[in-house]
Amino acid sequence: MSSVAIHKLSSQVAFTTRATSEEGPSKNARLLTRAGYVSQCAAGIYNLLPLGLRVIGRIESIVREEMQSLGAAELLVSGLQPRDIWETTGRWDSVDVLYRVNSRHGAEYCLSATAEEVVVAALSPTIRSYRDLPRAVFQISTKYRDEHRARSGLLRGREFRMKDLYSFHLYQAQLDEYYEQVCSAYARVFERCGVGERTLRTFASGGVFSRFSDEFQLLHESGEDTVFVTEDGKTAINQEIAEDQEALCTVFGGQLPKLYEQRAIELGNTFKLGTRFTDAFGLRVHGRSGASEPVLMCSYGIGTTRLLGAIAEVHGDDRGLVWGKEVAPYDIHLIQLQDRGNDGVVREQVEDLCKTEGISLLVDDREHVRAGEKFADADLLGVPLRVVVGGKCAAAGALELKRRSEDKTFEVHLGRLAQAVREA
Amino acid sequence: MSSVAIHKLSSQVAFTTRATSEEGPSKNARLLTRAGYVSQCAAGIYNLLPLGLRVIGRIESIVREEMQSLGAAELLVSGLQPRDIWETTGRWDSVDVLYRVNSRHGAEYCLSATAEEVVVAALSPTIRSYRDLPRAVFQISTKYRDEHRARSGLLRGREFRMKDLYSFHLYQAQLDEYYEQVCSAYARVFERCGVGERTLRTFASGGVFSRFSDEFQLLHESGEDTVFVTEDGKTAINQEIAEDQEALCTVFGGQLPKLYEQRAIELGNTFKLGTRFTDAFGLRVHGRSGASEPVLMCSYGIGTTRLLGAIAEVHGDDRGLVWGKEVAPYDIHLIQLQDRGNDGVVREQVEDLCKTEGISLLVDDREHVRAGEKFADADLLGVPLRVVVGGKCAAAGALELKRRSEDKTFEVHLGRLAQAVREA
Repeated sequence: MSSVAIHKLSSQVAFTTRATSEEGPSKNARLLTRAGYVSQCAAGIYNLLPLGLRVIGRIESIVREEMQSLGAAELLVSGLQPRDIWETTGRWDSVDVLYRVNSRHGAEYCLSATAEEVVVAALSPTIRSYRDLPRAVFQISTKYRDEHRARSGLLRGREFRMKDLYSFHLYQAQLDEYYEQVCSAYARVFERCGVGERTLRTFASGGVFSRFSDEFQLLHESGEDTVFVTEDGKTAINQEIAEDQEALCTVFGGQLPKLYEQRAIELGNTFKLGTRFTDAFGLRVHGRSGASEPVLMCSYGIGTTRLLGAIAEVHGDDRGLVWGKEVAPYDIHLIQLQDRGNDGVVREQVEDLCKTEGISLLVDDREHVRAGEKFADADLLGVPLRVVVGGKCAAAGALELKRRSEDKTFEVHLGRLAQAVREA
Repeated sequence: MSSVAIHKLSSQVAFTTRATSEEGPSKNARLLTRAGYVSQCAAGIYNLLPLGLRVIGRIESIVREEMQSLGAAELLVSGLQPRDIWETTGRWDSVDVLYRVNSRHGAEYCLSATAEEVVVAALSPTIRSYRDLPRAVFQISTKYRDEHRARSGLLRGREFRMKDLYSFHLYQAQLDEYYEQVCSAYARVFERCGVGERTLRTFASGGVFSRFSDEFQLLHESGEDTVFVTEDGKTAINQEIAEDQEALCTVFGGQLPKLYEQRAIELGNTFKLGTRFTDAFGLRVHGRSGASEPVLMCSYGIGTTRLLGAIAEVHGDDRGLVWGKEVAPYDIHLIQLQDRGNDGVVREQVEDLCKTEGISLLVDDREHVRAGEKFADADLLGVPLRVVVGGKCAAAGALELKRRSEDKTFEVHLGRLAQAVREA
């Protein structure tokens, strides 16, 4: 029932700041700040302005759809998490990025850096029998980590948004199967966000319960991580594995292939946790035979604000942002050059068509702004399709279109605009 | 483009816990916990389980629609807010409910209890000319307050969700007009959530810049607030005003009417802030004449998790929750009594119809659960319309329907189900 967004720059639903980011070296923060998608509140902490929130909304819708396709139920656990829950697993003292909060009444909390503890505690009363398994829940929420460095803009925030999924299983085979389904869903998320091609599932070390975990690493020079990739680009390992002879041997067998070192952005990770967390909370089920059985668990994360930053970083050019179709804040960026003659009528026709066809539209109807500045802002904002109304085109009943990813303009009649959007 | 939700209790997208809340005296927390909508994480801190998140999603969609109808743009500012921004307005030391957070790197933050400071700081670079006004932005996000008491369940949380709207104006008349539009939108929100009838706009004290602010108080014995209402129910004042002779005189003139003391739940509040915050941040605009002019500001809040609690508190009965149509987690609660004969076929027909008609459906297809328990769970969950498939009804091609708010059942043919949902 949600209506199609038809927003006008004059009404300031979107606003470009052209402010220069204080963070010089980070391309994503520089572009997103100039274009008015985000603003920095403190080092590593960003506000999502209306345009930025729209893109995050689209990214998170993709993530939500793919998680729901796995049968996972969405919930939202608390961000302020009591000390005793984190002490149950021994992580109160061992996780060094936890922000700690003291209440004036003596209670001690941390801010959610992740949510294994709270999720297991919350679900335990609802998982009693083998019939309650498998179970999977996810949330998309704000997380907090007291990071040492926060110099990569949206790629590493002290406050950031993350999707975290948790699955619970009775058997290892059931766990392994679900884990692979999640990895496939992750690949679809990155594909739909336009960064699938260069994102590699990467072997990472697994901790106590599993030989390996997986990272999803987007190869890019701006990344903070280092990965090593085989010549055919099919196998990747992270730094930890590269330094671990035994692990290397497990991945590649006796013969170590030539590996190419690359920088990468970690977009997601997946862990087989075994009974590490469920045992700590005493979560067991009545098995089919009546005996009490342990519960196996996995956790899986995707940083959604990091994904926003990564898309800006990878696809942005020297004129501004370049959004793919599925994550763009609007389908069309409409520029009205003059508020006279036939132009207003054509603009209204475009707006009506967009409402009917469910095409979202950002209209640059600002007066007192030169045409050149409007074109530059369209490039900066990065909406996939630019449509110009004005001058000879309007008179002739045609619209001037340009794809953000291309340089040439082309003309289309109003009646074929919807098709042009689909092909953009 | 979002698909219709068809969820099955057997797949545990929803789960009732029948856990008894640890908070004895609070009806809303007791019902919402038993029905599996929320679970308590710590005193005053709740997790939103899948059913609870669905209702919050619907409440927040209503709020969002009404805020967008005011031309306000949605954003999301940071939850971790640096000390210096709060010191700019002198509120770092004066707001006693702020949770303070120290970084291991020496930075000091508070958790967002409200967001005037961060919003003014974020928008200042984008408001430079009188042409940039009026401007309104809102967010719907998690807030944190270190409350002394947290004994009313969702009605007063230490962590809660809130919609906060901020508007900026050049003239007092423009501000006053917008303020009244917001108050009308608030009335629509409460009406659509099913608590409009007993929610009164209530005079409250206004602070430095305005004689009065407004509270939206839902009259109910479970409320933590006290209000005083005239006999005709048209005028209400809060406790502060009742104790302030001068304010009383301004509201009622010389003649004080008879006032009736009532308990109430504060669902929202609205403030005319004048230049209190904009001055602190040096936010001024170039006026029409070229001279620098001050910027006037208002802020407006609605607690969305509190609204969830209030609906549960006010409409819940001794069998469970009772949701209104616009906030219900599903339109239909379908109970399949037996997994045999014609019943499965009828259930599939209902599911297909719901997909086509955009009717959301919760299916209780659990095996190993007695019919009586299924009926009791339907009452507990509070979905507006219960549909039973099974036995003689299914055979005769009819469905047995019951509205949650009524006791009698009635029969409807499948072909008229959509109409029955609309009328529920």
